[in-house]
Amino acid sequence: MKNIFTDEYFMKKALQEAEIAFDRGEIPVGAIIVIDNRVIARSHNLTEMLNDVTAHAEMQAITASANFLGGKYLKGCTLYVTLEPCQMCAGALYWSQISKIVYGASDEHRGYRIMGGKLHPKTEVISGVMKNECSSLMKEFFKQRR
Amino acid sequence: MKNIFTDEYFMKKALQEAEIAFDRGEIPVGAIIVIDNRVIARSHNLTEMLNDVTAHAEMQAITASANFLGGKYLKGCTLYVTLEPCQMCAGALYWSQISKIVYGASDEHRGYRIMGGKLHPKTEVISGVMKNECSSLMKEFFKQRR
Repeated sequence: MKNIFTDEYFMKKALQEAEIAFDRGEIPVGAIIVIDNRVIARSHNLTEMLNDVTAHAEMQAITASANFLGGKYLKGCTLYVTLEPCQMCAGALYWSQISKIVYGASDEHRGYRIMGGKLHPKTEVISGVMKNECSSLMKEFFKQRR
Repeated sequence: MKNIFTDEYFMKKALQEAEIAFDRGEIPVGAIIVIDNRVIARSHNLTEMLNDVTAHAEMQAITASANFLGGKYLKGCTLYVTLEPCQMCAGALYWSQISKIVYGASDEHRGYRIMGGKLHPKTEVISGVMKNECSSLMKEFFKQRR
C-alpha cells in the first residue's frame, strides 16, 4: 500500500496555515509539527496581531507541541514550515532537539543559514518541499503590500 | 547630582530575577527591560516550570515589553540580562530592533557569539557588567546539580 504520509502531504497542511496568515494580513508562514504521522501542533505567523516579534509560526508550534507531549524536547517530531526558519526559530529548534525539519521556500535574506544560525547536530533537514507554492504566497503578499 | 541609574543599578534588578529562578530550580538567568530609566518588564528563565525551551528570560521580557508599549519594536529600550543571550534570544532581539543590550556573564558554549548569531546593526552591546555576580550564581546552580 502506498504511504500517503509524505512530506508533501504534511507541507500542504502547513501551507493551509500560511494561507490563514495571508488572509489575516500576516506575513504568510505556516507550520505544523508531526509525531508518528499525527499532527500535534498547527500555527501561523501572528506577529502583527499579537504585536510580538517572537510570535513566529515555528515558535508557537514548538510551545504547543511541548505542551501536548508534556516535555520540552521534541525528539521523534518533525516540523513542517513553509519558509526557512530565521535564527530565532533555529535557536529554539536547536534547544528542542527536534528530529527533523522540512521547509518549503528558502529565505535568502533572513533565513538561519545566511544569518549564521545553527541547528542541533541531531536534526535532519530537508528543504525545497513545495517551494514554489510556499514562495508564491509570500510574493503575492508583498506584491499586495507595495 | 550623581546619576543613580547606572548599568549596575539595573543589572542588580536582573540579578534579583536570576535569584528567583535559582530558588525555583531553574537555570538562574534574569532579565529586565528599561525605557527612560523605567523598568517595563521583569522576567526569569522558566523553561523547566513551563516545559518550554522558548521560555528564556529574554523572550518573556521582549513579549512583555511589546505588550506594555503597544508595538512590537523596542526602539529606545535597553535589555539587562545576567547571561549572554543564546542565538534564539539574539534572533528575537534582532527582530525587536532593541536599542541597547547589557549582559553580565559570557556564555562560552551557547552564547550567540560562539553560535554565530547576529544582533541588529543598530543595537549597542555592553558586556561584563557585574559578570562575577552573574556567573557565580550559575556556577553555584550547576554545582548543586552535580
